Amino acid sequence: MTSQTALKPVTTTAPVSEREMANAIRALAMDSVQKANSGHPGMPMGMADVATVLFNRFINIDPSRPDWPDRDRFVLSAGHGSMLQYALHHLLGYEDMQVEELQRFRQLGSRTAGHPEYGHALGVETTTGPLGQGISTAVGMALAERMLAARYGADLVDHHTYVIAGDGCLQEGISHEAIDLAGHLKLSRLIVFWDDNAISIDGPTSLSTSMDQPARFKAAGWDVQSVAGHDMAAVAAAIEAARRSDRPSLIACRTVIGMGAPNLGGSEKTHGAPLGEAEIAATRENIGWAHAPFEVPDDILFAWREIAGRGEAMRRAWEQRLAASPRREAFENAVAAELADTVFDALEAFRREHVEKATKVATRKASEMVLEAINGATELTVGGSADLTHSNLTITKGMNRIAPSDYAGRYIHYGIREHGMAAAMNGIALHGGFVPYGGTFLCFADYARGAMRLSALMGQRVIYVMTHDSIGLGEDGPTHQPVEHLAMLRATPNLNVFRPADVIETAECWELALKSKDRPSVLVLSRQNLPMLRRSHSDENRSRQGAYVLREPAEHRAVTLIATGSEVEIAVAAAERLETEHGVAAAVVSMPCWELFEEQESATRKAVLGSAPRVAVEAAARLGWDRWIGETGAFVGMTGFGASAPAPDLYRHFNITSEAVAAAALKLII
Amino acid sequence: MTSQTALKPVTTTAPVSEREMANAIRALAMDSVQKANSGHPGMPMGMADVATVLFNRFINIDPSRPDWPDRDRFVLSAGHGSMLQYALHHLLGYEDMQVEELQRFRQLGSRTAGHPEYGHALGVETTTGPLGQGISTAVGMALAERMLAARYGADLVDHHTYVIAGDGCLQEGISHEAIDLAGHLKLSRLIVFWDDNAISIDGPTSLSTSMDQPARFKAAGWDVQSVAGHDMAAVAAAIEAARRSDRPSLIACRTVIGMGAPNLGGSEKTHGAPLGEAEIAATRENIGWAHAPFEVPDDILFAWREIAGRGEAMRRAWEQRLAASPRREAFENAVAAELADTVFDALEAFRREHVEKATKVATRKASEMVLEAINGATELTVGGSADLTHSNLTITKGMNRIAPSDYAGRYIHYGIREHGMAAAMNGIALHGGFVPYGGTFLCFADYARGAMRLSALMGQRVIYVMTHDSIGLGEDGPTHQPVEHLAMLRATPNLNVFRPADVIETAECWELALKSKDRPSVLVLSRQNLPMLRRSHSDENRSRQGAYVLREPAEHRAVTLIATGSEVEIAVAAAERLETEHGVAAAVVSMPCWELFEEQESATRKAVLGSAPRVAVEAAARLGWDRWIGETGAFVGMTGFGASAPAPDLYRHFNITSEAVAAAALKLII
Repeated sequence: MTSQTALKPVTTTAPVSEREMANAIRALAMDSVQKANSGHPGMPMGMADVATVLFNRFINIDPSRPDWPDRDRFVLSAGHGSMLQYALHHLLGYEDMQVEELQRFRQLGSRTAGHPEYGHALGVETTTGPLGQGISTAVGMALAERMLAARYGADLVDHHTYVIAGDGCLQEGISHEAIDLAGHLKLSRLIVFWDDNAISIDGPTSLSTSMDQPARFKAAGWDVQSVAGHDMAAVAAAIEAARRSDRPSLIACRTVIGMGAPNLGGSEKTHGAPLGEAEIAATRENIGWAHAPFEVPDDILFAWREIAGRGEAMRRAWEQRLAASPRREAFENAVAAELADTVFDALEAFRREHVEKATKVATRKASEMVLEAINGATELTVGGSADLTHSNLTITKGMNRIAPSDYAGRYIHYGIREHGMAAAMNGIALHGGFVPYGGTFLCFADYARGAMRLSALMGQRVIYVMTHDSIGLGEDGPTHQPVEHLAMLRATPNLNVFRPADVIETAECWELALKSKDRPSVLVLSRQNLPMLRRSHSDENRSRQGAYVLREPAEHRAVTLIATGSEVEIAVAAAERLETEHGVAAAVVSMPCWELFEEQESATRKAVLGSAPRVAVEAAARLGWDRWIGETGAFVGMTGFGASAPAPDLYRHFNITSEAVAAAALKLII
Repeated sequence: MTSQTALKPVTTTAPVSEREMANAIRALAMDSVQKANSGHPGMPMGMADVATVLFNRFINIDPSRPDWPDRDRFVLSAGHGSMLQYALHHLLGYEDMQVEELQRFRQLGSRTAGHPEYGHALGVETTTGPLGQGISTAVGMALAERMLAARYGADLVDHHTYVIAGDGCLQEGISHEAIDLAGHLKLSRLIVFWDDNAISIDGPTSLSTSMDQPARFKAAGWDVQSVAGHDMAAVAAAIEAARRSDRPSLIACRTVIGMGAPNLGGSEKTHGAPLGEAEIAATRENIGWAHAPFEVPDDILFAWREIAGRGEAMRRAWEQRLAASPRREAFENAVAAELADTVFDALEAFRREHVEKATKVATRKASEMVLEAINGATELTVGGSADLTHSNLTITKGMNRIAPSDYAGRYIHYGIREHGMAAAMNGIALHGGFVPYGGTFLCFADYARGAMRLSALMGQRVIYVMTHDSIGLGEDGPTHQPVEHLAMLRATPNLNVFRPADVIETAECWELALKSKDRPSVLVLSRQNLPMLRRSHSDENRSRQGAYVLREPAEHRAVTLIATGSEVEIAVAAAERLETEHGVAAAVVSMPCWELFEEQESATRKAVLGSAPRVAVEAAARLGWDRWIGETGAFVGMTGFGASAPAPDLYRHFNITSEAVAAAALKLII
């Protein structure tokens, strides 16, 4: 009668009912939340029956190999119900989910974080908690599955993505972007269970919504079924039907939140707080669960472990198919997502060529040229844009589009859905087999923030191509001109923000982004043309250290000018002006990536920044720059929002000019 | 044959057709874009017929009094089609929209910014351009109209909110949040025209969407009609029917983008670029517009000016009703949104009371207590939360909820819709009559970013109550723990970010937020309890300068500790530790609002910061703090994402403790 990971023979003769299996989830959830004195019992108890049917009869995973590539993906979009997932993992026998972990729910260093965290516990496919992210990430997973199947065939890639979503997930705007994209692309391997318990935190959902969710999903091209969520046969029949559909499926499961709790069941009081000892005792009585906290009878545990056994057999059969497949090596390379050396050779050749040509283009155009080289050298990259393809310049020759029921292409028209795009890219990266990149205007990083943060938190190699990166975009005006966005992104942990100054730095930054396997990157690119600033080719990637001395004066530096992206040109012009007009020796530091510069040794940083007074110039908010200019430094940049006018007029209007930089420098050194 | 603002008598006998009126829009739009060599002609040309019917037959505005409170609101959600609005304003005779302004479209200092900017041109009700914001802001306007009507009656408040939205607006996630809220609340005065031209920037919308928009809106509880968008009689009939509906209305208008352009009409090429001289000439021929660029024949102009005349008469009749109304003074006070002195008297009494009591509460709880005082002293405030009412503590006694068809309350259950809430609050503030505030967790500022930026850009008094502001929220873990959010918000221009340290500062910050009539505020509040730090009452609002010396040592300062919010307690403990254990004289600066501190005179700032070495402590990213600690200062805070554990464990784990602050201080001064 103890819950252990090792599978023990069981002598019981009575078959275990799925209801009993579900009650094990209920008990573990309510007891863990109670012990932590924190957490959400209502959702795990409400969805225990659905989850049991799904796992017992359908899902194809192998807890002993949680990263088996052809496993089904399970996403708990309603991540606050994390105890549902942890209970499942414990019952299924994931080796890191011993009972002690359940007993340390929500405690420091446990595997059982408040919300499921990718990388913290085996088998957690994505981090959820911010509502709507799970379902939207799952769209990317389901798409990646179809794309990988198109490349490697159904004998190697043939799995489903299952999602449990709550009312919160479906109220969040991102869900609209996700379900429209999934319905459009006919992602039939995506099956979403809606925990339709009619309760959210403030009370009944009728306080704030009258949405007919089934009709809404039908409008988005989904297959929709509605079932009683505690009728296990009905749930099973719905899943079977969903698996036969040629469209993504919503299964609306009418449930009772906190099901099993005789007094609190059905109330928002079960949502985010422990039930309390009395109600837990009453629940035990009510559901016929006579076992002590954290105890699961062997027969019930055995029933759960049979699922794991089934998955293991499936996995072994798949491994045999893989071993026999002529596509084995290519498949394994894709899943490892290791970019071949040819990619980086192509980038070095690219840099060599363009230094010689002194190519003068916008960095968004440079990015397109770099992508031609990258996409020509690897099939792993998958591009896209939130309906700004020919502004972001994210498509390259020969990239075919992904279309409904046609997944052989490499380019995704994400639609006007920045948030959905970012979440889908997270899903594609998490699924494996591809390196996703996608474009929008930098200003609309605002719209994608929620999912971009998860890219960083999960350490996924998602590459954001964000063009039109300042007032340099011109006439579209302040709603489209980023000001605070660089600070917002730079403040985000585990995210590299690259703002290259010319075509060479653009190639360097792309290389660094591709090589950052455990970190997302943002490429911040200009709309306007920028000159070539490098004088000669260097084998070394000079952006690698985040900042470097682009221009060192012959004499001892009197001042150091620091800039990024399109303002490096201005800094160079200011340095020349200072030298020729004022006899002032000015160095110029190009700083394409703060994060990488921060990671350098203090001595390296000091050598680059120098000891002379410093002036920074960037067409953005000052916030953060004091780190690099010091208390006596000066900053030339934006102090408020932008304006609508041609870009050159705006640079003059906001006084971001070589004259202004030179004047600021002179003021410092006089 | 010249276009002038002054209405001239016209001798034409032939009545002007609405089509000719619409063609005036087409011509002005294509010519202005051509002259600017930048802009979006396709949408104005495609929606010219719909707009003409709407304005000619229905809309109730008075261009000579653009801020008449009971005017209809017109929102161009597809803001890139700004020339539609500017052409309308020119034709209607808004005094600031002379032909010269059209000729300076998208130029520096013109009224005719690339996208409609609130405050730049008369009659622009809200800033649009970031897609989906307009329709979502309009939901707030339509709600405010109903709420104001509930208070002051239909004789004073009885108008419609009309929106033109494009495919982009309807693809963006925020639109889902907005239409669900509007449908739920039965905002029948909201009428949205969908410019259903089946084209977005990348090409046909079929590249990325298969959404059945009419079915989707029906699912959200809307009245839906579909019409041929160039059939003016059909459009008019649909508007009439929509005005009779008891629900919000979508009128899907099947249109041709760039309608009138014989070769490019219907193509995405008309979306965001000038048509070119040849196509413009061909369009003139095609639509029978023989007039020179920017010329509008007098008879057509006269027809447009008749609309203005009708509006003026309506406005005058309304003014007579207002003059005769017993509710006149109350109504005018509401529209002016001037808070009575009693509000601020109540706040001062509150501060006096709680200094004496040394009240120890979380600042979110303090905010609730302050709101009790505020909401008791004024009816202007309207509260709400994105389904976290009892976490954000945004409701106070006696606040009734806004419900479908029942708008007499003061509290809005916004649902799990942070972005929609922020946009709706913008709409409520823009409409006038209320001071909106709304709550969510600080981390979900991410979700609301797009609309929060517009609060700042438009200078609207919207108050964001953002609780659970750090790792101090504890067990929910890193997805719910803000790290970069303070930097993100502080970098945003024209936004005050308040992070009060105790109940007194909370009251002070609320006072400052209420008094910031031309700026949004974010109140950043703790989940966890915080002690009273003030020793005595001061008549002065000490948070007014953004930062102040909370603790000045008897001796000359050896070190200055700077902190905000929940970390001020830690700084005070560190100062005491430094003094008692090390004999080091440490000052503590509480810095509840960086923006206000930045606005102080340099001497004031220096006096507060002092000349001793400085250590800052904040449970957030360092980015931005170097401004205040200088090059030799130290920072104690977060260096990555948070974790899931009880809050005290997390503060220890991340080494944000008085010991760590004291150690950092000692390191600086030794």
